[in-house]
Amino acid sequence: MQRTLFIPAMLLVCVGGSDARAASGPSPEVVAAQLRDAAIAGHDIAYSWVSDLTTHIGPRPAGSASEHQAADWAAARLKALGFENVHIESFPMTAWVRGTESAQLIAPSQQPLVIAALGGSPPTPAAGLEGDVVIFPTLRDLKAAAPGSLNGKIAMVAQRMVRTQEGAGYSAAVPGRTDGPNEAAQRGAIAYLLRSVGTDNHRQAHTGTARYVDGRVAVPAFALSAPDADQIERIAALGQTVRVRLFSGASYVRDAHSQNVIAEVRGRDRPQEVVLLGAHLDSWDQGTGAIDDGAGTAIVTAAAKLIRDLPHRPRRTVRVVLFGSEEVAQPTPPGHGFGGHSYADNHRAELPNHVLAGESDLGTDRVYSFALPSRVAESEFAKTLLRILTPIGVLASDRPPEDVGADVTPTVEAGVPGFGLNQDATTYFDIHHTPDDTLDKVDRVQLDQNVAAWAALVWLAADSDIDFRPRPAAGSATAPPAKP
Amino acid sequence: MQRTLFIPAMLLVCVGGSDARAASGPSPEVVAAQLRDAAIAGHDIAYSWVSDLTTHIGPRPAGSASEHQAADWAAARLKALGFENVHIESFPMTAWVRGTESAQLIAPSQQPLVIAALGGSPPTPAAGLEGDVVIFPTLRDLKAAAPGSLNGKIAMVAQRMVRTQEGAGYSAAVPGRTDGPNEAAQRGAIAYLLRSVGTDNHRQAHTGTARYVDGRVAVPAFALSAPDADQIERIAALGQTVRVRLFSGASYVRDAHSQNVIAEVRGRDRPQEVVLLGAHLDSWDQGTGAIDDGAGTAIVTAAAKLIRDLPHRPRRTVRVVLFGSEEVAQPTPPGHGFGGHSYADNHRAELPNHVLAGESDLGTDRVYSFALPSRVAESEFAKTLLRILTPIGVLASDRPPEDVGADVTPTVEAGVPGFGLNQDATTYFDIHHTPDDTLDKVDRVQLDQNVAAWAALVWLAADSDIDFRPRPAAGSATAPPAKP
Repeated sequence: MQRTLFIPAMLLVCVGGSDARAASGPSPEVVAAQLRDAAIAGHDIAYSWVSDLTTHIGPRPAGSASEHQAADWAAARLKALGFENVHIESFPMTAWVRGTESAQLIAPSQQPLVIAALGGSPPTPAAGLEGDVVIFPTLRDLKAAAPGSLNGKIAMVAQRMVRTQEGAGYSAAVPGRTDGPNEAAQRGAIAYLLRSVGTDNHRQAHTGTARYVDGRVAVPAFALSAPDADQIERIAALGQTVRVRLFSGASYVRDAHSQNVIAEVRGRDRPQEVVLLGAHLDSWDQGTGAIDDGAGTAIVTAAAKLIRDLPHRPRRTVRVVLFGSEEVAQPTPPGHGFGGHSYADNHRAELPNHVLAGESDLGTDRVYSFALPSRVAESEFAKTLLRILTPIGVLASDRPPEDVGADVTPTVEAGVPGFGLNQDATTYFDIHHTPDDTLDKVDRVQLDQNVAAWAALVWLAADSDIDFRPRPAAGSATAPPAKP
Repeated sequence: MQRTLFIPAMLLVCVGGSDARAASGPSPEVVAAQLRDAAIAGHDIAYSWVSDLTTHIGPRPAGSASEHQAADWAAARLKALGFENVHIESFPMTAWVRGTESAQLIAPSQQPLVIAALGGSPPTPAAGLEGDVVIFPTLRDLKAAAPGSLNGKIAMVAQRMVRTQEGAGYSAAVPGRTDGPNEAAQRGAIAYLLRSVGTDNHRQAHTGTARYVDGRVAVPAFALSAPDADQIERIAALGQTVRVRLFSGASYVRDAHSQNVIAEVRGRDRPQEVVLLGAHLDSWDQGTGAIDDGAGTAIVTAAAKLIRDLPHRPRRTVRVVLFGSEEVAQPTPPGHGFGGHSYADNHRAELPNHVLAGESDLGTDRVYSFALPSRVAESEFAKTLLRILTPIGVLASDRPPEDVGADVTPTVEAGVPGFGLNQDATTYFDIHHTPDDTLDKVDRVQLDQNVAAWAALVWLAADSDIDFRPRPAAGSATAPPAKP
């Protein structure tokens, strides 16, 4: 579909003329269009990457042997693709291992329930645990319950996630997962159940990490599939007491490690200046991590590979970082054993020379807008990018980049400008964090559209000398320093 | 949508005049239109039936305590709805119980697999079993393998089911499930894997019964979810040996029983003549049997209830039979412990007076055509039925009824004419026999359209004296006897 909209590269020689600098070759805009067209034409780099990663290795839980294998595989593949400075940076972490788990409705009738323990949540006693379920429509209602009011009970938050294009429904629902277990435990609950943070109605539970408070998740905590949550709510609505048995054999590996994999296309005249492309190699254990985030690692790698294969290098360095241990990251306080923090810590001294950073971690659906740092939102750079990306269905966002991605957040919080290539997330949360996250869900055409957008944006930024940081305050001669 | 097509009942007084017999009341055609319109108007009988059945009882495996509870619940509900002669007919059977089960890819990498044991298949050894997988594209290819060629191996048939409106894709694929285990065992295989007979790409395996040969399923047999089958095929396509570990704790209960639940609207002047409406109460254990076949039991019950509530009874008896133990029925030889055979055996003497029989067992999607016995295919009865059902989107099929339904097949094979109200099965096999078969998949509007079609057809047949059996051969004065 998008192919019919292509503007031939020839035309763009004229259109982009004002920004052309290299008399000896095509302008950066023409090169960006060529990169875009090469990606859309269906080169095989991205799809073969995500296919091989998910087929050869499968699930890649943070800190597991599979995640280590994935890192080794990725480093070898990046070298084979011709990247420079390919290396692995390890960091220690505590790994969480799901183990066997099960749940049954035991009153008023006996029925199996489909659940998934939340990441980080402790095991039940070996014999399981049993309790009556107290349902709260939202986390807010749970928080309003009195201390002790849930003694011996199993608390359940039944909030439904709203389907939206940009993923706002996820942000609204996810505190039920991160904060619910501790809030339930504070009121005496022996376990916590959550209607899956997801938008499907399949019999698959959406896992995800719960927040550690005082170094731990307080009680065994589980997501229920949407139909199972419906069933419990229907029975409770009849005025009947719902009693549930839960078992989790989850465990922890205290001396585990994870790692980030780094690869570069070195810049030709400002190699110390870095445009960072991130995605994460780890995945949840139930699926094979195809859309979360095998696709993201494929997109950024393929975009960088197209740039690497150009006749000449960009002026700045393009750095791909495939982060480890993203899924189990703790939002606050800054988590140990999280690839995003490890990168920012290891590269603290370089961050003032990181000119721009972005992350691909919202699946494989099409990019529909780009968001640039406010300094350049109305610039010639933005106008050029819009000319390049409009033919493949990408608008300029009317908002600055917001959630740039968990992995690059520590880097962005240290003062590095972030950008966003906003993907359509309308159906992403049907599959996110479920067993259904498998290769067949990857749409090759949309995957390549992502690669096109990434290659064009990253190329234009890396082959420029544009400063994306906020303008210095009036009267100041220097750019503000990076945050400590 | 269909509501805009309704022809007011007033108009039909004229249209249907030629078939009117009762000067004291509306013609049968007018009554059929009223039944249709009452169903489409959204009475709550069918939906509340399937909601209550699946919520209160949940899964109802053949021969289980849950199936018994469902029968008791159904009998009580049928009495409360005002049906006559409500009773339960028990029969002995061997029940199959799934138990715990699991599967892992163990080489070339370790990955969990989503599987479901096929009904009737034996457990693995307690420690599980392990073997290299030999993939056959179709059952035919497996049958072509030499005896002994699979010694110590796990055979896998990878055939994909084709999506079709009328379900022909299921018939084409299902021998892989019924016959595969025995064919594999005959060639030395220690276990059998099958790409699920289904049309979805979710991480859910479609169970279903395997055929007993010499009284048993020869080897542990499992369906793989479609993405898991894809994964194994992709790895094998790389030339790597796929090794799998399988565990099933399945067991049998030899002295179990199941039961059929029967209810009637007695005919006003030919009560011994029966129009039979069937569906099955049992379900597979993974879901709650909402579309298979809670919906069918709801449709036939609601249709009969609408007829029961008319100001006067139909001439013939309308009999609802909610069969037990359909899912585990063995096609050949005639299975013991199958509700369809139990009914035909118990009611053998009455079958010559069964004038017509049909079954609702293809989910909740709309009826798009009716199929009548060939004797009446061009009759005034068929023309009247077409006038009644055309407004709700139902055509006359150009083919006679074929697979009328597993439960009524023994009755039809004994000479009772069958009819079909053909449902759109395009998406039915996405969910069929999976954990996903839950209430949320029931479309209330389409459910009521089914009730409308059933109520109209059954009413017209029951309030007539039409003989639906094949015409007597030339020179013969009597109808052919029912088959023995």
